[in-house]
Amino acid sequence: MSYNLLKGKKGIIFGALNEQSIAWKVAEKAVEEGATITLSNTPIAVRMGEVSALSEKLNCEVIPADATSVEDLETVFKRSMEIFGGKVDFVLHSIGMSPNVRKRRTYDDLDYDMLDKTLDISAVSFHKMIQVAKKLDAISEYGSILALSYVAAQRTFFGYNDMADAKALLESIARSFGYIYGREHNVRINTISQSPTMTTAGSGVKGMDKLFDFADRMAPLGNASADECADYCIVMFSDLTRKVTMQNLFHDGGFSSVGMSFVQWLPTKKDLMSTKMKMVISFTVNR
Amino acid sequence: MSYNLLKGKKGIIFGALNEQSIAWKVAEKAVEEGATITLSNTPIAVRMGEVSALSEKLNCEVIPADATSVEDLETVFKRSMEIFGGKVDFVLHSIGMSPNVRKRRTYDDLDYDMLDKTLDISAVSFHKMIQVAKKLDAISEYGSILALSYVAAQRTFFGYNDMADAKALLESIARSFGYIYGREHNVRINTISQSPTMTTAGSGVKGMDKLFDFADRMAPLGNASADECADYCIVMFSDLTRKVTMQNLFHDGGFSSVGMSFVQWLPTKKDLMSTKMKMVISFTVNR
Amino acid sequence: MSYNLLKGKKGIIFGALNEQSIAWKVAEKAVEEGATITLSNTPIAVRMGEVSALSEKLNCEVIPADATSVEDLETVFKRSMEIFGGKVDFVLHSIGMSPNVRKRRTYDDLDYDMLDKTLDISAVSFHKMIQVAKKLDAISEYGSILALSYVAAQRTFFGYNDMADAKALLESIARSFGYIYGREHNVRINTISQSPTMTTAGSGVKGMDKLFDFADRMAPLGNASADECADYCIVMFSDLTRKVTMQNLFHDGGFSSVGMSFVQWLPTKKDLMSTKMKMVISFTVNR
Amino acid sequence: MSYNLLKGKKGIIFGALNEQSIAWKVAEKAVEEGATITLSNTPIAVRMGEVSALSEKLNCEVIPADATSVEDLETVFKRSMEIFGGKVDFVLHSIGMSPNVRKRRTYDDLDYDMLDKTLDISAVSFHKMIQVAKKLDAISEYGSILALSYVAAQRTFFGYNDMADAKALLESIARSFGYIYGREHNVRINTISQSPTMTTAGSGVKGMDKLFDFADRMAPLGNASADECADYCIVMFSDLTRKVTMQNLFHDGGFSSVGMSFVQWLPTKKDLMSTKMKMVISFTVNR
Repeated sequence: MSYNLLKGKKGIIFGALNEQSIAWKVAEKAVEEGATITLSNTPIAVRMGEVSALSEKLNCEVIPADATSVEDLETVFKRSMEIFGGKVDFVLHSIGMSPNVRKRRTYDDLDYDMLDKTLDISAVSFHKMIQVAKKLDAISEYGSILALSYVAAQRTFFGYNDMADAKALLESIARSFGYIYGREHNVRINTISQSPTMTTAGSGVKGMDKLFDFADRMAPLGNASADECADYCIVMFSDLTRKVTMQNLFHDGGFSSVGMSFVQWLPTKKDLMSTKMKMVISFTVNR
Repeated sequence: MSYNLLKGKKGIIFGALNEQSIAWKVAEKAVEEGATITLSNTPIAVRMGEVSALSEKLNCEVIPADATSVEDLETVFKRSMEIFGGKVDFVLHSIGMSPNVRKRRTYDDLDYDMLDKTLDISAVSFHKMIQVAKKLDAISEYGSILALSYVAAQRTFFGYNDMADAKALLESIARSFGYIYGREHNVRINTISQSPTMTTAGSGVKGMDKLFDFADRMAPLGNASADECADYCIVMFSDLTRKVTMQNLFHDGGFSSVGMSFVQWLPTKKDLMSTKMKMVISFTVNR
Repeated sequence: MSYNLLKGKKGIIFGALNEQSIAWKVAEKAVEEGATITLSNTPIAVRMGEVSALSEKLNCEVIPADATSVEDLETVFKRSMEIFGGKVDFVLHSIGMSPNVRKRRTYDDLDYDMLDKTLDISAVSFHKMIQVAKKLDAISEYGSILALSYVAAQRTFFGYNDMADAKALLESIARSFGYIYGREHNVRINTISQSPTMTTAGSGVKGMDKLFDFADRMAPLGNASADECADYCIVMFSDLTRKVTMQNLFHDGGFSSVGMSFVQWLPTKKDLMSTKMKMVISFTVNR
Repeated sequence: MSYNLLKGKKGIIFGALNEQSIAWKVAEKAVEEGATITLSNTPIAVRMGEVSALSEKLNCEVIPADATSVEDLETVFKRSMEIFGGKVDFVLHSIGMSPNVRKRRTYDDLDYDMLDKTLDISAVSFHKMIQVAKKLDAISEYGSILALSYVAAQRTFFGYNDMADAKALLESIARSFGYIYGREHNVRINTISQSPTMTTAGSGVKGMDKLFDFADRMAPLGNASADECADYCIVMFSDLTRKVTMQNLFHDGGFSSVGMSFVQWLPTKKDLMSTKMKMVISFTVNR
């Protein structure tokens, strides 16, 4: 069902990889709701992935770009404005990757070049995106910029590793830039802190199922799905939320506000200590 | 412009007093968006106020009720279900009043009977409303319950007085009951923390203008208006936010995330101390 | 071991019931650290309890008082100042009780007279205490006022019931009054959010053991004990923390900042739903 | 006055530059309180600064180190353990620097190599320090690790620039590593969020005076001084706070909990817009 919430609006969606991706769902819903969009992902994802199928289905262009490259980001915004014949109304940043997680380095054995990459890809890319857009004056007044985050930015989740720090940095960037871009052009910048989501990247990875289940059982409404997340993104792109900015919005079935659910059994601290602590639970790369 | 976001939904709006009221705007927009509603306010507000004009305009019934009375609240839910021919999909609690503020008692000279009233009217009424609804099984699965709050629940605002404590209590009730009602019936409960708003009750009161100006200058997007708040309420009642629960959502142009704006002059602490501290700045009763 | 951290200071300790009480430990440590103190508890607790043993051991006076009575509180402060021959340097509020919890009413079946009592005893009493003290000008410059809280003020804990709302109110009162008392007399007001603690009242109550275990397993350092809490209170009364005010300080072995520990098994949502939900887990009255 | 709070304890203080530095005060107080310490700062600061005077006064060794170099940090911990004849009980990280601030680049015109440096020096160095310490098993059971932060990690402060993001990252690292180090060795890791402080680096810089004044006027107790911050650090290193971990502790005279003080005049949004927005207010490097 469509409400025409984004009728006439133009947007760029970063990070759609395949049908499971949240960004993929956002792209589909944005078009359903009346928007014109462009897609962007890394050159390698564009070559190997299913993004071209999505672009055909939605009749929109894919602009390959490394989101850590200022030049590439300039290309995305310039090309998008050409296509749109004007400014951009909304942007989705759904990008994250930790080489430390991939290489199963634990948080007390991080490789610092990899940590730089984690931060650059998952957080600093958001600043670059916004700075590029602002320098090009690419965003309309009351435009809406969103990034996807996770509650690990506030509390520690076993196994989430350096992605937690990247998300904290990401949310800080949203606040810092939200102040400036809001004051000067009424552009709002927010993050949505989404439930653990079984995207391709995530679901194949060891430990993700435990995190997913834990959150699903704690949250009174259960986990929010990728589809539901897309709905919430649409709402945040629409004109109905024009005074919401610099916020981190939990979209998690209530998980973030639950301290203890009705839990019957948990391992003791001694159990935990006897477990091989170096076991790596890794997940959540590239939604 | 209407999106039909609430097509087929039924809701109860507590607290519409006159055209300036946020609840009034929510009532109008809800109907525009396709909802059927009932209104409720205190018997005295119904007799003296302009609520009947609104009820005629929107072709909906006004059910007088003291929101601190369990019996009255039962009447509102029962009568609404009769009118709707079924369960309630959304509820707005836009109720708040502090006799201490009205009587210009400062926070270090509170009358405790009045404090009880502040808490009962402004916060406990929200619990009563939800408990009554749950006992009557009056809310549909994935129904949405909202109350209006203010950032004074998190940080102290000179002059906001015991309403700050009432808002903290209100937000806690939203979390506590959100867990139970969510787990059992998927009903979501949230609060919207709204900018200071120039409603009738507020605008006539000394000091409100200062608070309003301060917030408007700090917030990069300026204050959110009553109309914009109504938009946000509609969004929270819609099916697009079904996994958002137990949250306090700031709708304030970014105010809550600003620490210091570009401020050129402020009084010194000595200035403040020499000011007659007993002067009462009071505001924000009965949105 | 004593550091003489409170040498020459005078304080009032509310809520010492018996050897397990946090307030009892605080009283002992305060005296060890060089303070002169008075004790206060309800007349019934004074008659039946072991408080007189403590008062003899510490050579200090017990002043019976109902903490919800302004008159009684006036007596406590006046008598204490007589004994001290001067103003009060620190105050501990360790008071909490929920008749709804005692009577095993669930949160969706609260008795509202009982809720009033919960709020009055557990939270409003803190306001009364401070307002009385301020009107009597009973607290020294840079004096320190503390109350004990719990993380349920921020997140929902199954079974904590209306005590969660009381703690949210309590923490708000600390902020609201902290602003005024700080500005006028440099008095600081804080709350310590303590781990679940096996006090007499708590340990006898069904469900407390589960909450205690859960927190102990989640917290990287395990739960904080009553003794350790007393240490932290001493620190907050000392001159080494004179610029800390309006804060809620977590003293919980890290629990509040943990999202998910290394958990191996949890019940499913279906399991939870099939459980008799009306079962009441109640606890944490009268530390 | 000394309480012997750190009697027999050994610690490393990073970041003492001169008499105004918070780290300098911490070093002095730690020794007064009975600790044995080593100092560390950058080779250039050691050569040019007054650190050697401090080391002579306190009769302790200065170990030059670039805190972004894992090798240098290894040297600091190894040499310190040699000197101490055993493990380290406490560590202070008082390090921060933004080349973007120094070069007066605004937040919407960041140089990304400089941003990398800001994050590396001001935040990632904290991770490196802890990871090195843990790999060397250099910290005693219940040891205490502290870093200095600022409220800009939570809310935006005009002019604080990319240091805000660095502080958010720093606080996240404290949580993430606090979980692991706590679970395995009971080591606690916290940050203190300190008032703006007139250190040498800070006080010479344009705009710092405004931020300092603003905070001083908002905070009911006024700003916390460097001396008072040192007191709070001592408390956090002592045995009296052994169950406090993964926390960000505001030490700011109440500033962080104040929303609006008694403010008489503020510039309008229009005023702000007409101001030359590119003006850079920069401050707070190298406490």
